[in-house]
Amino acid sequence: MSQPKLSIPEMHAYMAEVFPELGPRLEVLEIAPYRLLARMATIPADLRPGGTVSGPTLFALADCAYYMATLAMIGREALTVTTGAAIDFMRKPAPGWLRAEARVLKLGRALSVGDVLVFSEGVEGPVARASLTYSIPPAPSSRSSSASQNSARS
Amino acid sequence: MSQPKLSIPEMHAYMAEVFPELGPRLEVLEIAPYRLLARMATIPADLRPGGTVSGPTLFALADCAYYMATLAMIGREALTVTTGAAIDFMRKPAPGWLRAEARVLKLGRALSVGDVLVFSEGVEGPVARASLTYSIPPAPSSRSSSASQNSARS
Amino acid sequence: MSQPKLSIPEMHAYMAEVFPELGPRLEVLEIAPYRLLARMATIPADLRPGGTVSGPTLFALADCAYYMATLAMIGREALTVTTGAAIDFMRKPAPGWLRAEARVLKLGRALSVGDVLVFSEGVEGPVARASLTYSIPPAPSSRSSSASQNSARS
Amino acid sequence: MSQPKLSIPEMHAYMAEVFPELGPRLEVLEIAPYRLLARMATIPADLRPGGTVSGPTLFALADCAYYMATLAMIGREALTVTTGAAIDFMRKPAPGWLRAEARVLKLGRALSVGDVLVFSEGVEGPVARASLTYSIPPAPSSRSSSASQNSARS
Repeated sequence: MSQPKLSIPEMHAYMAEVFPELGPRLEVLEIAPYRLLARMATIPADLRPGGTVSGPTLFALADCAYYMATLAMIGREALTVTTGAAIDFMRKPAPGWLRAEARVLKLGRALSVGDVLVFSEGVEGPVARASLTYSIPPAPSSRSSSASQNSARS
Repeated sequence: MSQPKLSIPEMHAYMAEVFPELGPRLEVLEIAPYRLLARMATIPADLRPGGTVSGPTLFALADCAYYMATLAMIGREALTVTTGAAIDFMRKPAPGWLRAEARVLKLGRALSVGDVLVFSEGVEGPVARASLTYSIPPAPSSRSSSASQNSARS
Repeated sequence: MSQPKLSIPEMHAYMAEVFPELGPRLEVLEIAPYRLLARMATIPADLRPGGTVSGPTLFALADCAYYMATLAMIGREALTVTTGAAIDFMRKPAPGWLRAEARVLKLGRALSVGDVLVFSEGVEGPVARASLTYSIPPAPSSRSSSASQNSARS
Repeated sequence: MSQPKLSIPEMHAYMAEVFPELGPRLEVLEIAPYRLLARMATIPADLRPGGTVSGPTLFALADCAYYMATLAMIGREALTVTTGAAIDFMRKPAPGWLRAEARVLKLGRALSVGDVLVFSEGVEGPVARASLTYSIPPAPSSRSSSASQNSARS
């Protein structure tokens, strides 16, 4: 089993650089092989009528957590992009801390496929479940070392 | 076939009230039975590394467009919430205008199910396709007239 | 936490009755609260060109495993139906035994939401991942104790 | 806009060869650029308790219709495989004829992404809606003209 290539501080620094909007809101709590745990505090703009957290906010959290879980394994690849996602909203989240548990189920040369459970502080059971597919760009010529990485992943 | 219950100006006024963050960014272009067309201009916070529009931005647009397409048919129901969504990101959108075409495929008493195509100005073919399911809350006692509406919809 | 209402032999007997086609092909290995493990051997009709297992076969296995995981918790409810599903096919399964691990993430009065991982004997990592939503029908008159719960839903 | 590469009789012959189980059950009614219309009659094995058509049957129909819509545009490529799908079951189909309308929204070198609406004879409105992603295999050596295209992908 491969080991993560980024530490928590390295991930925080990278996200602040490439995602200046959402990145700094997410605090990575744990990075393990093919798993990542993060949390985020809601802000007023995240809320919907009735005081619940909006669907796009939960989607953005799941998407970002899965992006980080993939980056943790492959290294900095800012151009990695979501190609597809399915999300179920199961319980009403409360304003406050949201926790995302991401797991990578398949990491190929071109695709990363996995899922994320989102929990809300004080709510029993997950509030959302997302499955995500990310496309990993072909290595540009400047990443000469990537051939060996890719053969190890295949 | 039922007729829409909200006009474009009524929809704009309602969205500004219930979605002060995203609502005012969406301009409704057309409301027809079970169909709604809207557009939104991207802002810097919507962009990702490489200059493309982020997945959560496209998701938020699709989600909001479908919400409005449902509301147009059932009337103001702010508590209507997304229960599930699946989205495919197919082409790289460009900063600028995004257009969303929402169609309601099933409108039952408890659920609204349909899909949205998202287009980006200057890009041929849709940049994203989303299917969405919204849960429509049971009528509270204060909406005494809703019983007949519901029987008509079933 | 609730306990399962059906044992493995009860589940086998029930599936043979309500799903005479697929039911007898699935062998339930374990029933636990909100979890069910089952396996199925592929037959020639399940295979696609190239010798792999067809997508619809994997979908049918995931769907049936999740149906049983829900029934195990709520009891015999043959009319429970799938309302939505999303599935990712991640690795090429081999002919032979397929194993499905179903978990129920939310069991409400009207909906059961969860996911299933499918494994293929001799393949490392899951070959497919499905998320499923099942609609649970309102109780018929014979379940008099739940009538009041259900009237709130209508 | 590209033209289809397969006629209806060619499609029927090819499906009978590569999908001996499901292929002969589907009758292609129309092939147009990026669109295909097909129908299938249900058989007893497709039905569920209560007389409705099973989810896996609807999934298999949607999957097969989309496969044919893709093949119609790219030519015979039996190894083209589904990588992901999301399906919503919206209305109760009746035993009898099911009709599938497939449209290809994006046809790239490596992926085909689109959706399918399924209708049931005598039921107003679609009974199911599916979005599908198919992976198109790299060209074998016999397709020498596309080798250079594909080397860019590896």
